[in-house]
Order: sequence, then C-alpha cells, then structure tokens
Amino acid sequence: MKVSVLQFEPRLLDKAYNLMRITDLLSSLKTDLVVMPELCTSGYVFSTKEEVYSIAEVSGKGEAFLALSNIATKNNCSIVYGYPEVDGDKLYNSSMLIMPDGDYHNYRKTHLFNREKLFFSPGDTGFQVFTTPAGVKIGMMICFDWQFPEAARTLALSGAQIICHPTNLVLPWCQAAMKIRSLENRVFTITSNRIGTETNAGVTISFTGASQVLNTKGELLANLPVNKEGIATAEINPLEANDKTITERNDAFKDRRPELYRL
Amino acid sequence: MKVSVLQFEPRLLDKAYNLMRITDLLSSLKTDLVVMPELCTSGYVFSTKEEVYSIAEVSGKGEAFLALSNIATKNNCSIVYGYPEVDGDKLYNSSMLIMPDGDYHNYRKTHLFNREKLFFSPGDTGFQVFTTPAGVKIGMMICFDWQFPEAARTLALSGAQIICHPTNLVLPWCQAAMKIRSLENRVFTITSNRIGTETNAGVTISFTGASQVLNTKGELLANLPVNKEGIATAEINPLEANDKTITERNDAFKDRRPELYRL
Repeated sequence: MKVSVLQFEPRLLDKAYNLMRITDLLSSLKTDLVVMPELCTSGYVFSTKEEVYSIAEVSGKGEAFLALSNIATKNNCSIVYGYPEVDGDKLYNSSMLIMPDGDYHNYRKTHLFNREKLFFSPGDTGFQVFTTPAGVKIGMMICFDWQFPEAARTLALSGAQIICHPTNLVLPWCQAAMKIRSLENRVFTITSNRIGTETNAGVTISFTGASQVLNTKGELLANLPVNKEGIATAEINPLEANDKTITERNDAFKDRRPELYRL
Repeated sequence: MKVSVLQFEPRLLDKAYNLMRITDLLSSLKTDLVVMPELCTSGYVFSTKEEVYSIAEVSGKGEAFLALSNIATKNNCSIVYGYPEVDGDKLYNSSMLIMPDGDYHNYRKTHLFNREKLFFSPGDTGFQVFTTPAGVKIGMMICFDWQFPEAARTLALSGAQIICHPTNLVLPWCQAAMKIRSLENRVFTITSNRIGTETNAGVTISFTGASQVLNTKGELLANLPVNKEGIATAEINPLEANDKTITERNDAFKDRRPELYRL
C-alpha cells in the first residue's frame, strides 16, 4: 500500500483557507493513507477558549469533516487529520481517521502540551486501533504523546500496524524519538508536522516541519524539509508490522515480562 | 559527583587476565561511580553451560567480587560490572553494584538476547533501585533491556537518578535508543560496551564500543571510541534527575496517564 504524509502552513482561525490548501495539495495524490498535522483545520496559537469554540467541530460533523470525507471517498483513501473538537462545553485536541467507505474514528489527545492545557480537556478515548476496509490496523497518537513510550506501546500491543501521528512540533526531539517508537514496537509510524510561525496576543510559536514515514526498524522511508509545504509518499507492506522477530530467539513482544514492569 | 564508563576487550574464560586489565585501567581513576561492560569478567561467546559454570560466581562471593570490592573500598567509589552468576544449578547474566562501604546489590538480566538463552535463566530480580552512602539512587539494566522501554521506565518510576547499563552490544541501535530512554525518563544513563571480536566453537561475534554517559535530556556528556579501551568521565549533579519538568505546565511523570496504558 501507499502511505503519505502531508505538511503545510495552516492559517490561524481560517478554516476556509486551510481546507482549500489541503484540498489543493491532495488533488492529484494517489495514496491509500494520508496523515496531516495536528490542529490543521484551525491553526495552533489560540488566546481564548472562545477562539477554539468558534472553529471547533463535533466529531463526525462540520465543514472540515465533510470536505475531507468527500476527498476520502473520491480518492479512495484513508485520511487522518488533527482538529479542535467540541463536545458539549468541552474542547479536545483530536484527530480524525476517515476511511474510504465513510466510516470514521476519533482520538482525543491524551497528553496535552503546555498552553494546550489552557483550552483543551485531556483526552478520554485512550489508544484504540481501527481496521480499514482493506484490513490495515491503524492507531493514532498526537504530537506530545511521543514523549510517553506507553502511547505507542499501547497502540502496538493492541495490534496497530501503522501509527498515524499528527503533530505541531516545537521541541527538537520528536523525530529521533519516533525512530525508537517504531523500532521498539516494530510498527510503521507516520509523523506529520506543520511549518511556519504563528503569533496571537503576544505569543509566537515556530513549527519545524521534517515530517517523516518510518518502517518497523525506525528507518526513514520518506520525509519532507523543515520549511516547505508538500507531500511525501512511501510504499509499505503493513503485514511487516505483524512480525516482531528481532533474532531467531527474540521477539519484541513475546520477550516482554510485564510481571516485572511498573505502570 | 564524577561518573565514569570503562570499556575494554575481555578475554574469553580468562578471569585472571580480565581482572588484571580492569585493575590496571582503574588504578589511577578518581571517580564516584564507574560502570563496566556486561559479562566483563568472563567474555561472552560461550559454547556450553559447563564453560559458564567454570567462570561464574555466586552473588557477593568469588575472586572478581573480592577484587572489585577491594577497589571500591580503596578508591572510595561505587562499581557496577557484569558477570555470570551461579545460584544452585541456575546461571544468570547479572550485574553487581558494589558500594564504597562494601554493601552490594545484584541484578539478573530480565531480557536475554539470542544465544544467551542457551546458557542463562531469565532474571527474576526485577528492576530495583539502590541508594549509595552519598544518597545517590542507582538502577541497573543490562544490554538488550534497552529494547524494552518498560525497563528504564520502571527504574525511573522507582526513583533511579542514574541508570547503569553494562552491555555487550552487537545491534546498532542501542546508543540512539538510550538517548530516548534518558529523555523520556529524565534520568542519567551510563552505557558501558565492550570492544573486540570473540570466536568460540565456530561462533564469532564483534562488539562495538562507543560507551556513553548521557544527561537527563539524552545529551552526550562523555563517550569512548568504537575500538579502543579506555575510561571516560563526566561531572554530574544526580539531583537533576529529580526534576521531571518539561515545560512550565508539563512534567514527564505527573503527566502520565497509566489508566489509559496497556501493560
């Protein structure tokens, strides 16, 4: 199968522009799965909850969901994208997986980073794995979840072959850490990061691109530069992630000894 | 405090030579803690259990233990070294921590690598943390334990400030993985690897050196080349490992959400 990672520079609080830019980038893409950045429909540097409410969507509803569902159906691909979710009076930093048959699944970010705690509630969905119509097992984590080995571990133990990882990275360590997440779990990982600088109410944050697709040994299959929009695609066999063999006598999962681990 | 990593080329089944070489390398060392390679009293490429029995020691007894205890006392430092342990009819791939006051603690390797399974029993001690007379909290893991994030995680959650990590590395990923182990747990790690090539009964294995000392952000404080014997020393403040702050609103441990993790 073909898997792709898309990175671009969203405009803060401008959903129409962001959907146009995404649609444009995806227009000629032939792929089976594409992963986009965290909060890519909205931008990142919010200053009030009201701003977030103004652009958030209910899971499975709203302009962004409909636009991207249409693309998933038309292009016959799965799409993962980050967006601000509203549920009652709560806001979540979420990612949506839309399958080509219209089925969809939501993940709410477990580990919120820094100022996100001012706006979003901690996610309550946990780390679930979803199966595409083609039988591929997909898990999602968002950005700072990389810091906690338990996130990717939980997804992999639950059968994920590909971990889709929308990000808005500011710390410098994620790309190197994801190599170890792939390697220790023997799964594919797709990290999509945004680019550009955003300023709002005196807060300025710069994002660092370098989106990447890694194989089950943590090796780079495809990546993008630090400061340019674009899409990178790799051909993978997701069944490779079912093989946890390290040596003829070692298996990354069967060798685990949970009775000696602390949670 | 000063922490050191020692790497050398042990000779297979030649404990007298190995102790002489270690004693020689340590003779003029002024440090508070020195970590040596896995199975450094015995060599690595065993072909029979009888060979291992012939050079193994009971925990807290034997030539190697006595020689290294004497050095720990004389040099007023803690020593961590890997050795083959015998307990009844069982063999373990173990590491010993000897304190300058003569107190000692044993760790039996949890995750055995490849042919080690032919000779050794899986360790049953789990990941414990021990406090030196100076109040420094030390944990041990051995070589292939690096593959399992739960090893360093369990030690760090149990209060380890410094993880001592004797190795005989053959896979190429450990040094990069340990940077993430340090970073995700905000602990110091000291990885001691041996060098040289060993052949026994038709099996040849080459080891890769590059021993390293990392700070709590996974940054290199001291290291050694891939093919030379020697010692590298760094000055550290172990209390830095008590600070799990990532941002003003993030803490590597308090932000964990074990109720959403799978063991």
